[in-house]
Amino acid sequence: MQKNSNKHVITGRTRIFGIIADPILQVKTPEEMNALMAACGEDRVLIPMHVTEAQLENAVGGFRSIQNLDGFIVTVPHKTAIVALCDSLSPAAQMVGAVNVVRRDADGHLHGDILDGVGFVAGLRSSGIEPRGMSVYLCGAGGAAQAISFALGEAGVSHITIANRTHAKAEELINRLAAEFPQLSLAIGSPDPSGHELVVNATSMGLRDSDDYPCDVSLLGADQVVAEIIMQPERTRLLEAASAKGCRIHLGRPMLRCQIKLMAEAMGVESQRPLQTGGGE
Amino acid sequence: MQKNSNKHVITGRTRIFGIIADPILQVKTPEEMNALMAACGEDRVLIPMHVTEAQLENAVGGFRSIQNLDGFIVTVPHKTAIVALCDSLSPAAQMVGAVNVVRRDADGHLHGDILDGVGFVAGLRSSGIEPRGMSVYLCGAGGAAQAISFALGEAGVSHITIANRTHAKAEELINRLAAEFPQLSLAIGSPDPSGHELVVNATSMGLRDSDDYPCDVSLLGADQVVAEIIMQPERTRLLEAASAKGCRIHLGRPMLRCQIKLMAEAMGVESQRPLQTGGGE
Repeated sequence: MQKNSNKHVITGRTRIFGIIADPILQVKTPEEMNALMAACGEDRVLIPMHVTEAQLENAVGGFRSIQNLDGFIVTVPHKTAIVALCDSLSPAAQMVGAVNVVRRDADGHLHGDILDGVGFVAGLRSSGIEPRGMSVYLCGAGGAAQAISFALGEAGVSHITIANRTHAKAEELINRLAAEFPQLSLAIGSPDPSGHELVVNATSMGLRDSDDYPCDVSLLGADQVVAEIIMQPERTRLLEAASAKGCRIHLGRPMLRCQIKLMAEAMGVESQRPLQTGGGE
Repeated sequence: MQKNSNKHVITGRTRIFGIIADPILQVKTPEEMNALMAACGEDRVLIPMHVTEAQLENAVGGFRSIQNLDGFIVTVPHKTAIVALCDSLSPAAQMVGAVNVVRRDADGHLHGDILDGVGFVAGLRSSGIEPRGMSVYLCGAGGAAQAISFALGEAGVSHITIANRTHAKAEELINRLAAEFPQLSLAIGSPDPSGHELVVNATSMGLRDSDDYPCDVSLLGADQVVAEIIMQPERTRLLEAASAKGCRIHLGRPMLRCQIKLMAEAMGVESQRPLQTGGGE
């Protein structure tokens, strides 16, 4: 991505996107989205909006009244609290109980969606990995795991094993997946990831060097793909171990990189030119 | 002004200004202000915000909750209605009963000011015309005339004659000026502008070619300066007539051009570099 490709002359005709976060200084979405809009020839800019938890409801109420605001991205700490402030939700947002992008319609109606899951699937596909028909071993049952398992179900995987330290949470997720995808084979997993084509870490284990592995890496085999949602470090201990075992590995970064394009579409951008993806956050 | 000088890479650190208007498409303030911010090395952008009259209160309520929004410019049709939504007003805004720029403090406090008058005075000075000590003939007693007369009083003119078709309105303005500037000589005027050093048209007469003159131009003399607030046409019938009489003329454009810098300062920009003015709206 070129450093200056997101420069854009803002006029009275320019349409606006926001990103709400607290803190705001570290967000990379303005650069990413504005580079994408510039590359697509869209007269739109995304601006940072620093909104605290206590101010969320009031700020979002005001957004309804800005006619040229077409939507906003939602990140920490607002992804759960924003749900109650939306007028409608996508099936994924309903299931996960979280929203990371809101489309504002012309009448002020706010539609929430969560793209973590479809972003992960799009990231797999951008690396040439087609999940359809695959059997999946998924570490975790939290928000990210919920979004990803739902998107994998949508993408047509044949089986998902949920491995989570708290079994009750894994069972709850399996029940929700079973209701949504009656044909999908589901199981609660042990730490053993063997026997699955795709192994996905959707926990935060690996963020710190001192973290344990999210599963028993000694049982990984060279015929498995091992995917990560953690972006920093780029190569987690899990990915290093998988690589040493001969597995194909898939980094965390494409999940967010692919989401920029999906977020633009979710906020109503229908560019004639293909949306290109920039770097991830 | 260079066409592309207002390009700016927006990041999570960028601070935001808005302009609220309905319609919004025609506003030129984003280009003007962003060019100024870029020239000053300020990491700030001004974005258009399309807000209708019915939505004003709700939108402004939301602005209080956006921590990195430092202020917004207010234009048609909101300049009067915004007064009641501000938490404090400058003396000029109080007197005129209108606001065209709002500063948002860190706690969400909204302070309204109107810069039409000081913009006019700054425009005069930018053209080398110092109003201090001048005797002024002012056509009009409406919002623009009120703001300009107040600013001329502040600037130290010696005398103001208010010439307005409705005498009661001129009297009311004179009473308010007298209360604010006890030393200032004041009079209600006839259509005759003679005997004043500076003649100012603060009415809308001259916007259309078919408009009458705002005063009796046959009585203008070559020792007078004749100033206009109308920007389009650039040279009104008044200015053409004054020019033919040998008067020095002062166009309407500098009033707005100088306001861009004043608006930035009113919204808290304290640049180390001198703020440069771009073109007017």
